[in-house]
Amino acid sequence: MMIIMRTNATQEQIAQVVDAVQMNGLRAHLSRGTERTVIGAIGDGRPVDRGQFSVLPGVDRVVPISRPYKLASREFSPENSTFPLDGVRIGGDEIVIIAGPCSVESRSQIIETALAVREAGAHALRGGAFKPRTSPYSFQGLGEQGLELLAETRELTGMPIVTEVISPELVPLVARYADVLQIGARNMQNYALLHAAGASQHTVLLKRGMSATVEELLMSAEYILSHGNRRVILCERGVRTFETSTRNTTDINAIPVLKALTHLPVVLDPSHSTGHWEYVNSIARAAVAAGADGLIVEVHPDPASALSDGAQSLKPERFAELVEQVKAIALAVGRSVAPIPQPHQPA
Amino acid sequence: MMIIMRTNATQEQIAQVVDAVQMNGLRAHLSRGTERTVIGAIGDGRPVDRGQFSVLPGVDRVVPISRPYKLASREFSPENSTFPLDGVRIGGDEIVIIAGPCSVESRSQIIETALAVREAGAHALRGGAFKPRTSPYSFQGLGEQGLELLAETRELTGMPIVTEVISPELVPLVARYADVLQIGARNMQNYALLHAAGASQHTVLLKRGMSATVEELLMSAEYILSHGNRRVILCERGVRTFETSTRNTTDINAIPVLKALTHLPVVLDPSHSTGHWEYVNSIARAAVAAGADGLIVEVHPDPASALSDGAQSLKPERFAELVEQVKAIALAVGRSVAPIPQPHQPA
Amino acid sequence: MMIIMRTNATQEQIAQVVDAVQMNGLRAHLSRGTERTVIGAIGDGRPVDRGQFSVLPGVDRVVPISRPYKLASREFSPENSTFPLDGVRIGGDEIVIIAGPCSVESRSQIIETALAVREAGAHALRGGAFKPRTSPYSFQGLGEQGLELLAETRELTGMPIVTEVISPELVPLVARYADVLQIGARNMQNYALLHAAGASQHTVLLKRGMSATVEELLMSAEYILSHGNRRVILCERGVRTFETSTRNTTDINAIPVLKALTHLPVVLDPSHSTGHWEYVNSIARAAVAAGADGLIVEVHPDPASALSDGAQSLKPERFAELVEQVKAIALAVGRSVAPIPQPHQPA
Amino acid sequence: MMIIMRTNATQEQIAQVVDAVQMNGLRAHLSRGTERTVIGAIGDGRPVDRGQFSVLPGVDRVVPISRPYKLASREFSPENSTFPLDGVRIGGDEIVIIAGPCSVESRSQIIETALAVREAGAHALRGGAFKPRTSPYSFQGLGEQGLELLAETRELTGMPIVTEVISPELVPLVARYADVLQIGARNMQNYALLHAAGASQHTVLLKRGMSATVEELLMSAEYILSHGNRRVILCERGVRTFETSTRNTTDINAIPVLKALTHLPVVLDPSHSTGHWEYVNSIARAAVAAGADGLIVEVHPDPASALSDGAQSLKPERFAELVEQVKAIALAVGRSVAPIPQPHQPA
Repeated sequence: MMIIMRTNATQEQIAQVVDAVQMNGLRAHLSRGTERTVIGAIGDGRPVDRGQFSVLPGVDRVVPISRPYKLASREFSPENSTFPLDGVRIGGDEIVIIAGPCSVESRSQIIETALAVREAGAHALRGGAFKPRTSPYSFQGLGEQGLELLAETRELTGMPIVTEVISPELVPLVARYADVLQIGARNMQNYALLHAAGASQHTVLLKRGMSATVEELLMSAEYILSHGNRRVILCERGVRTFETSTRNTTDINAIPVLKALTHLPVVLDPSHSTGHWEYVNSIARAAVAAGADGLIVEVHPDPASALSDGAQSLKPERFAELVEQVKAIALAVGRSVAPIPQPHQPA
Repeated sequence: MMIIMRTNATQEQIAQVVDAVQMNGLRAHLSRGTERTVIGAIGDGRPVDRGQFSVLPGVDRVVPISRPYKLASREFSPENSTFPLDGVRIGGDEIVIIAGPCSVESRSQIIETALAVREAGAHALRGGAFKPRTSPYSFQGLGEQGLELLAETRELTGMPIVTEVISPELVPLVARYADVLQIGARNMQNYALLHAAGASQHTVLLKRGMSATVEELLMSAEYILSHGNRRVILCERGVRTFETSTRNTTDINAIPVLKALTHLPVVLDPSHSTGHWEYVNSIARAAVAAGADGLIVEVHPDPASALSDGAQSLKPERFAELVEQVKAIALAVGRSVAPIPQPHQPA
Repeated sequence: MMIIMRTNATQEQIAQVVDAVQMNGLRAHLSRGTERTVIGAIGDGRPVDRGQFSVLPGVDRVVPISRPYKLASREFSPENSTFPLDGVRIGGDEIVIIAGPCSVESRSQIIETALAVREAGAHALRGGAFKPRTSPYSFQGLGEQGLELLAETRELTGMPIVTEVISPELVPLVARYADVLQIGARNMQNYALLHAAGASQHTVLLKRGMSATVEELLMSAEYILSHGNRRVILCERGVRTFETSTRNTTDINAIPVLKALTHLPVVLDPSHSTGHWEYVNSIARAAVAAGADGLIVEVHPDPASALSDGAQSLKPERFAELVEQVKAIALAVGRSVAPIPQPHQPA
Repeated sequence: MMIIMRTNATQEQIAQVVDAVQMNGLRAHLSRGTERTVIGAIGDGRPVDRGQFSVLPGVDRVVPISRPYKLASREFSPENSTFPLDGVRIGGDEIVIIAGPCSVESRSQIIETALAVREAGAHALRGGAFKPRTSPYSFQGLGEQGLELLAETRELTGMPIVTEVISPELVPLVARYADVLQIGARNMQNYALLHAAGASQHTVLLKRGMSATVEELLMSAEYILSHGNRRVILCERGVRTFETSTRNTTDINAIPVLKALTHLPVVLDPSHSTGHWEYVNSIARAAVAAGADGLIVEVHPDPASALSDGAQSLKPERFAELVEQVKAIALAVGRSVAPIPQPHQPA
């Protein structure tokens, strides 16, 4: 890190900072400018808390030099990480599409949706059994019954299941039913949950918190990776800003930024990132054009009767258009949408 | 709620919305303007998902009329809620000050700090045993050993203990040692944790998420209150904005807004809301001037050696100045800082 | 507008609001719910200040129903507005690309860049002669000399010129040289400038302010349109958020939102919206995939020696790749990049 | 500045950066860490564009060391700047209060308001004659007639006048009538206007842009100061965030931050920073508690009939309470509200 001194810092204050740097096992390297002195603190890459230096007398501010994440970084693993999602492989040249309702509401609803999105070209089925809701009075999901319906739908359609886990003690239960554990935006910094998901060695789809920076998303991925679990899919789902015409602001920049900083697959959720079904297809196309490895999209057979997120859910026929549009964009960027594995014969 | 139709909505679309409103057990009330029709959906106060109406053909947008929280609202309980925090009472005319280190680091550190902040005028001791940290490589707290040190310090000083709980399954353990369960900003929408804290019937200090709206904070409080647990203290700790000269942006407006909307006590954390010890005393004064019921402040005997949050921690002598300044402000707004109960004789 | 009363509003307060509504020439329409009364104020579409109602006793809040802009709205003009930009037409099926340096720095620099971007496929040349800079000590542009160099370059290459105007009294001067007057993000709400640009009857490229909502952008366009000047191009250039890995956050959602709300052409500036040349091509592709009508891109023959915005400027060869990539995306969405008109023969 | 190289930067790339640094007349200072090399570029304090270094091959990012403003900095002038505002002095120990309507609407309205706020304890009168409005259909102010009414009111009451100027060519006109030129939030980066206001040598009240950083506010002040005009008052008026319960989010942190960084007087506008009259008094108290040198407050004799900003305007009697409350807070922080100079005898 670089410790930038105030313009009026005394020699004694500079010496005190140098001492503190050395007491932390770091080498100090002085750079005296016309106005200010800067002290470089050079270590062996192990993290050191910067806060302690910023309180020393005469210090103006402390600037980090190293990135705080290691395992998630492109430098740690220059090649793209790819791993199987049942019969397809995510993170490579092929685009993977995950689709389904916000919540599992009933046997017929989830099966009908699964068949429709499979037919349209989706590779995996999403559907929430445990729902984090802003209001305690809103529908909270069917719980384990929802998981059983997902398992039955998997049996019927051969589609791998992506479903959310909202508490560390539920990880073993959800992992019994799901192919991919989804960690939602509100839980991106629920560290107990990140540890449990990492320890499960299950594939994890980690959504960016609604006001988390890209760096913080990577730090949360690092929690999972630190358990030796390398199967982490990152998901941009919109950030919170002042703009009110959409539910969130899709941070499309995050796609190329993440692809530059990390080797992990990156998908985008255009349903949450816009909040309006009319805008979903546009943003799905934009995501793939920008370099995303996949999409996760809300689809409901009858959005007007959905128990949650109806406004942002596509009808199956609109979703079929999305898949066709995304196929054209994928070709335009030299990629393709993954083919559907043979039904009922998951790899 | 009010359902606002598009300017070009057809009679048929309007009729369809009216049907949908009635099928949800609500009364529909039409208001035809020169440009648009607005349909009021009048119910009995039970929550109805708005999303389902926004997807109907011809609908422009749906505007809620009722507040989504009930138990937390000023209308539910016009009088300020007050409840004891050991020997003092929070939420009434007296200002309550909670102080202590970010993390419990050692026996001597926590006892020394407790004695110093007690001497300066603090009513309760804060200190983290389980620490949510952005990086998996940062100090994560002493865990149960930290709780034991807090209990020992409580014994010695008579100060009630405020400490964070980061996972639902830890609630019983932390509740055994702590007087107040703190739920941190990153966990404000960790609903499993809110349920567990509510069920514990323990006093809860609920911090606002760094990009949560005031309404979302009240919805999270509603989760706790819905368990019949009325002892919830709300805490403003700064929100995330574009400004980089401070760690967060103190939303001082939230103080009068919360006092208008809810009967619950409201405190402010000037340490996290600024991130710099130099600004803490100014913002502590501002909070009490704006109407806050208390403060929670980070104090460390040697900030430069703190294992976390050193940059924003006050030295004990600076904290003593804070208390004196806040006493003067309290008088200026017709209140006072609560007297310290007799040591070793908590009420 | 809808005036939502507090739950405890009295009959007298409701009557007073009804009176105020009627005194403003509006009809009042009451809707009494179980908890609250809502008063619809129905007018003839002329704007009425909402603030005056929100201060009446018993009023909780006031919700607008009509959109505040008229001439810019899709409802005013359901068809896309298109207009010529020299030999090409913007707003129709063809994608238009504007490229060039941030600032005009010298004769050779602007001519060299123009020839290079023309060769690569750009339709118009951008280049600043008057530069709004955060620091008074930064390069402020060549002023009128810069305009003359642009005019000479136009003569040589046949490319129409897009250049910024930063003050109302400069509008006649800049309009003498430029084909399109650019109004920068910092001036989006400089109303004197908007009026002057509207009155000039020149084509205007209006950039969104860095924290302006989509609605505010449309209100600023309305200022120009209200002078009978229908040639307004809207430009998304990124908004300010908490994210620091890019200079701004590209609000890609704004593309489909604007296309839904307005008939005006919409372009995107991936240079400012990312701030890093590495990300420009990704976001340019995303913009066209999302439905943008064009792009405005910074290109410099030697970014490392640019007097401004070097970090986000493309080298000509990278820009040539951008054009090829955008052509492929345009085809994928059923559009095409406009062909280059015959050189030296502008229409 | 410090130029931080990528972890995989080559020796050749490092050498190229060192060359570029030296060609800019700066000294290069290398610091080789275990992972990265950092190159310090040491100059004589003159500003150098950082962008050009960030595009060099192998560069990760460039970190500024010096502050970009000079004349506005506390280091340039360690003592607080104070200057007279007619009979009082701003920037010293005494708190100055500016009050009045958003817009001058009529002779009786402005005179009535002036007499009321003078009686309550205000030192200067605010009132807009030229109004920047989001909508071209809203009331735009009385223009020069409004200035004449302000001048007449000044004559009658002895109160100095603070009024907004929205265009550089209006500076001479407004300066003829006004004691203080107000530059509004939307114009904080209207550099032509900043230059004109600086050149006028008139006192300027510069409002922070709604998404401007503290540093950008100081850079805009630097434009005015660079004309040798030292009479600049900075005004915090709330920033734009995601929170919707108030019109803006008061950045109370900006008060102590600005007092640390600059010698210029700092005032706060609680009317705009909250947008609701109920919250104005709380935030006015908080501002003075945090260290503000003054307040600027909207007061209207009949807010419900105000042509602009009625919702955030105080009635005179409520404003009188504000002044009393602020007097108490001022005493609590060792300051006082300035006494009113003898009427009709301005110093």
